[in-house]
Amino acid sequence: MSGVIIVHGGAGAWDVPKDRAAASMCGVKAAARAGYKFLSEGGSAVDAVEAAVMSLENNPLFNAGTGSILNEDKGIEMDALIMDGSNLKAGGVCSVTNILNPIQLSRVVMDKTEHVLLAGVGALAFAKEMGVQTATYEELHTELAQYKYDNRIGIKGTKGPVLEYKDTVQSIHSDKDLGTVGAVAMDKDGHIAVATSTGGMTGKRPGRVGDTPIIGGGMYADDSIGGVSCTGHGEAISKVCLAYRILQSMSSGTSTEQACTDGVQHMQEKVGGVGAGVIVIDKEGQPSYSFNTGGMAWAYIDKNKDIHSGMLPGDHNTEKFKPQAS
Amino acid sequence: MSGVIIVHGGAGAWDVPKDRAAASMCGVKAAARAGYKFLSEGGSAVDAVEAAVMSLENNPLFNAGTGSILNEDKGIEMDALIMDGSNLKAGGVCSVTNILNPIQLSRVVMDKTEHVLLAGVGALAFAKEMGVQTATYEELHTELAQYKYDNRIGIKGTKGPVLEYKDTVQSIHSDKDLGTVGAVAMDKDGHIAVATSTGGMTGKRPGRVGDTPIIGGGMYADDSIGGVSCTGHGEAISKVCLAYRILQSMSSGTSTEQACTDGVQHMQEKVGGVGAGVIVIDKEGQPSYSFNTGGMAWAYIDKNKDIHSGMLPGDHNTEKFKPQAS
Repeated sequence: MSGVIIVHGGAGAWDVPKDRAAASMCGVKAAARAGYKFLSEGGSAVDAVEAAVMSLENNPLFNAGTGSILNEDKGIEMDALIMDGSNLKAGGVCSVTNILNPIQLSRVVMDKTEHVLLAGVGALAFAKEMGVQTATYEELHTELAQYKYDNRIGIKGTKGPVLEYKDTVQSIHSDKDLGTVGAVAMDKDGHIAVATSTGGMTGKRPGRVGDTPIIGGGMYADDSIGGVSCTGHGEAISKVCLAYRILQSMSSGTSTEQACTDGVQHMQEKVGGVGAGVIVIDKEGQPSYSFNTGGMAWAYIDKNKDIHSGMLPGDHNTEKFKPQAS
Repeated sequence: MSGVIIVHGGAGAWDVPKDRAAASMCGVKAAARAGYKFLSEGGSAVDAVEAAVMSLENNPLFNAGTGSILNEDKGIEMDALIMDGSNLKAGGVCSVTNILNPIQLSRVVMDKTEHVLLAGVGALAFAKEMGVQTATYEELHTELAQYKYDNRIGIKGTKGPVLEYKDTVQSIHSDKDLGTVGAVAMDKDGHIAVATSTGGMTGKRPGRVGDTPIIGGGMYADDSIGGVSCTGHGEAISKVCLAYRILQSMSSGTSTEQACTDGVQHMQEKVGGVGAGVIVIDKEGQPSYSFNTGGMAWAYIDKNKDIHSGMLPGDHNTEKFKPQAS
């Protein structure tokens, strides 16, 4: 086989206009193709997930890279992480500004430093030193992100530091499009990699770091078990180490589907998380997706090169791979 | 019972002068007493671990708060995290500067925001807004941290971004005193809390975030299983979600001792970590410590109010609690 890749474009209510929903579906399929291109040419899973996430970061519809949401001060601060399941190497950035592709910077952190995670101004200085492409605020800013900021329920009037938990729930439900992105791939050698990227939550405090750059929280990769990327309420996901928990459960023989269901249920029981979406590739190369939110844009390309995709519960479209379509 | 508390002052070679070793032992015992004071007065485990870690942060011998090590640019950037095992609430900061007690700021993040982790300038701005005590560089800087920076093997001559793994190993072994701090406590109601704080690794890249502020990496607390704080090579600990792994193992019936041994062995097999230290309180209130490094300064106060402490392998001193000694 050439390999397998699965991507998601965030879980949420997805109560979005039909034209934007269709554009999001095109976006996740294009990202899966962008990653698969590497796999089909014999490239690594790490290259594939980096390319897939870059595609989503460059798509202004998704909340990562260009199109990242605005924080309380209208700033754009991004988190990302990439992990190689063959050796558990990882690299990530948190609360970083002015980077065109945070996942590209994460890759350089993984490959060129002894560290796993760089924050804020230190991460930006490292990017400049390494020649990773920067971006102005205007280049990252989109009308969609501004619209979300201007219309967000639960932030206006609660400008102070205390946001009650019910406001968080409210904001999750009212935020039509969370849009954090992630990708999991297995290459021809059976190696698994995961990449995640996000702008966070609209109206978040400056400096807030979610689950996306947290190893074991928003993602994990281990060739001997599988790879997982999670999306949803970052604080809830972090508190229960959701990605690691799901893989540990799979490792002890639980089916992927059951491990995802159990993991999200554990999260909701323990910390009241409002729901989450998960994409997985197991050690046999079987891709899976799971969400208990209103929707999650997802797409995968399987061992037969068929492209599968969907967004709402029950959606599952299949089409033949057309490389020219990428 | 009043409660139980265990603290550590970092794992490493501990090839330190005898007078400094003795001072470190006084430091961990004083920290255990500072936390126990809350427990004996009916206070919460969260209050106890915050007080214990503040005591270690304020002690210039330890690499946290005052006495934090210097990064590559001689800057002082600190990480900390506190977690309440009764509800899995958590609060932390990473790569934050100019804070006298990062664990105090972490507590405010936990109690007064909807977020779990704040980074860098955002974390500092939040501290100022909330009136959390700041500190100048000079107030946090110590001669000991400067000495470590000036004499560090493996940093000089590798000023560039690439530090080979062997350099990391070298630096761990040559850094006589890692000194990251942590505390785990159980209160009279059986609630468990964990707090951790660090200045990181001498010569680290600006912005580097280790395992200390990562839920499930350097620490975890869950009343239904126990509480864990880890210390050692932060990148290695993060990559295997060491604290969460140990608790999951205990949850499935493995003894605390075996779970710690298995966890650290897994880390060394998977990512070549050079060793680690772990402190634990299980759901029955039994404190434990474990390390496979040259030493770890630790102290605990048990249900009988006896104070136990040690540093080198085999050390285990016991004395009666004398409240006036705090």
